[in-house]
Amino acid sequence: MKKDDYVHGYTERENCRLFDQANTLNGLLHGDTVYPPGSAVLEAGCGVGAQTVLMAKNSPAARIISVDVSDASVRAARNLIRSEAPSNVAFCTADIYDPPFQDETFDHVFVCFVLEHVRDPVRALIRLKSVLKTGGSITVIEGDHGSALFYPESEDATRAIRCLVDIQADLGGNSLIGRQLFPLLKKAGFHRPEVSPRMVYADSSRPDWVRGFTRNTFNAMVEGVREQAIRKKLADPGQWERGIADLHATTGEDGVFCYTFFKARAEK
Amino acid sequence: MKKDDYVHGYTERENCRLFDQANTLNGLLHGDTVYPPGSAVLEAGCGVGAQTVLMAKNSPAARIISVDVSDASVRAARNLIRSEAPSNVAFCTADIYDPPFQDETFDHVFVCFVLEHVRDPVRALIRLKSVLKTGGSITVIEGDHGSALFYPESEDATRAIRCLVDIQADLGGNSLIGRQLFPLLKKAGFHRPEVSPRMVYADSSRPDWVRGFTRNTFNAMVEGVREQAIRKKLADPGQWERGIADLHATTGEDGVFCYTFFKARAEK
Repeated sequence: MKKDDYVHGYTERENCRLFDQANTLNGLLHGDTVYPPGSAVLEAGCGVGAQTVLMAKNSPAARIISVDVSDASVRAARNLIRSEAPSNVAFCTADIYDPPFQDETFDHVFVCFVLEHVRDPVRALIRLKSVLKTGGSITVIEGDHGSALFYPESEDATRAIRCLVDIQADLGGNSLIGRQLFPLLKKAGFHRPEVSPRMVYADSSRPDWVRGFTRNTFNAMVEGVREQAIRKKLADPGQWERGIADLHATTGEDGVFCYTFFKARAEK
Repeated sequence: MKKDDYVHGYTERENCRLFDQANTLNGLLHGDTVYPPGSAVLEAGCGVGAQTVLMAKNSPAARIISVDVSDASVRAARNLIRSEAPSNVAFCTADIYDPPFQDETFDHVFVCFVLEHVRDPVRALIRLKSVLKTGGSITVIEGDHGSALFYPESEDATRAIRCLVDIQADLGGNSLIGRQLFPLLKKAGFHRPEVSPRMVYADSSRPDWVRGFTRNTFNAMVEGVREQAIRKKLADPGQWERGIADLHATTGEDGVFCYTFFKARAEK
């Protein structure tokens, strides 16, 4: 997994977006993951630590090791953890395909918003399985941009989202991966995968979600690939602007925006 | 609302499909609707009674009046209710646009899988509001075929689903209406609409849902418009067969199928 395999995560604005996303989505995505005191947890692909903070706070007595392939991200994550107080997290720089741990080291593995960026998610899962103890669990959380459902409907907005999907695919990622967690975990040899979809639903009766998710997370993420979309001729500037305008129309008084994350748990 | 405004509901196979759907989905869609003893409930658009039975069993001491524009459907619903035992339901044939009741008659109004078939859902909701008591509630449940999300992905399958959407639109209906419940209820003047999405998620670890929902409900519904889709040249026979085959591939060992219903509640 190389640094340029990412669509997002490496600019200050993007960092803000990731934190906003994490805070808004904490209850929806993380609330039911609580690791027992003393258990050894590997977070594979911690990025700048936005999800690490939430996960660690939910399991304050677990011993967490968070790794990321990027030194810069690991430094940012370490600083964030210091400022946010959880003291049960250690960090190291490591490749998800080659985790520097002995087999059967961890009781649990946690993977959040990572598989969407990797070229070979089954291989990554198999490597993570090797460092997981027999009987241990893996938890995987991923989005799926194909789940975006909105009102007013708009072909231009759908095309703008498709640009993001295509750009991530060009980088070797897959932003439609959420729906695949069940077969991916099975192919990697995990037992009893169970998938639980988590839908964000935002209309004007839920202004925090409209602001925190639709506008500052999803729309910001699509807007972030404007230059690439136009340079790669996936959209012309007029189409693009109409698409973005239509995405923002879903945050209006009568607008609706839905997006589904998929959370899966399986055993070794 | 004329009989031919329907895509489904009037053949024996379709009736089986509706019952299968209702039984599979009962907990997901109806479990949290319980009307108090003695309350007066109008079910607008009961069809052949598949949802009526479930709703009535959840509120055994409510006084329910179920209406439908079709005499044949009302007869079928009455027979079903007799065989299924709830004794708290009365039926009559009535147009949803012109309910034969005085203003402020009902404590609650229940509308399930109906607005997707009507040409002017806001007008229907306004008429239903008039027969609802001030302070009473309306509950609306609708699907949204745009929410179908599946693995393996397939453009042919997406096109087949789109045929169903287009055919229903030609008949004056809207099978993408689920996402619109919030603005529709607001436009009809209801207060405090709250929308709750209910997602069906089916993979091979949940064989009842694969059989009961993906295969016997959703795929059967798409397959039901084959002749119309080909006659209207929305798909050629080859495309159609590939699309149906791909929809069925989502019921395989590694397949995944998701669909979202939207349930809304609002007050007068």
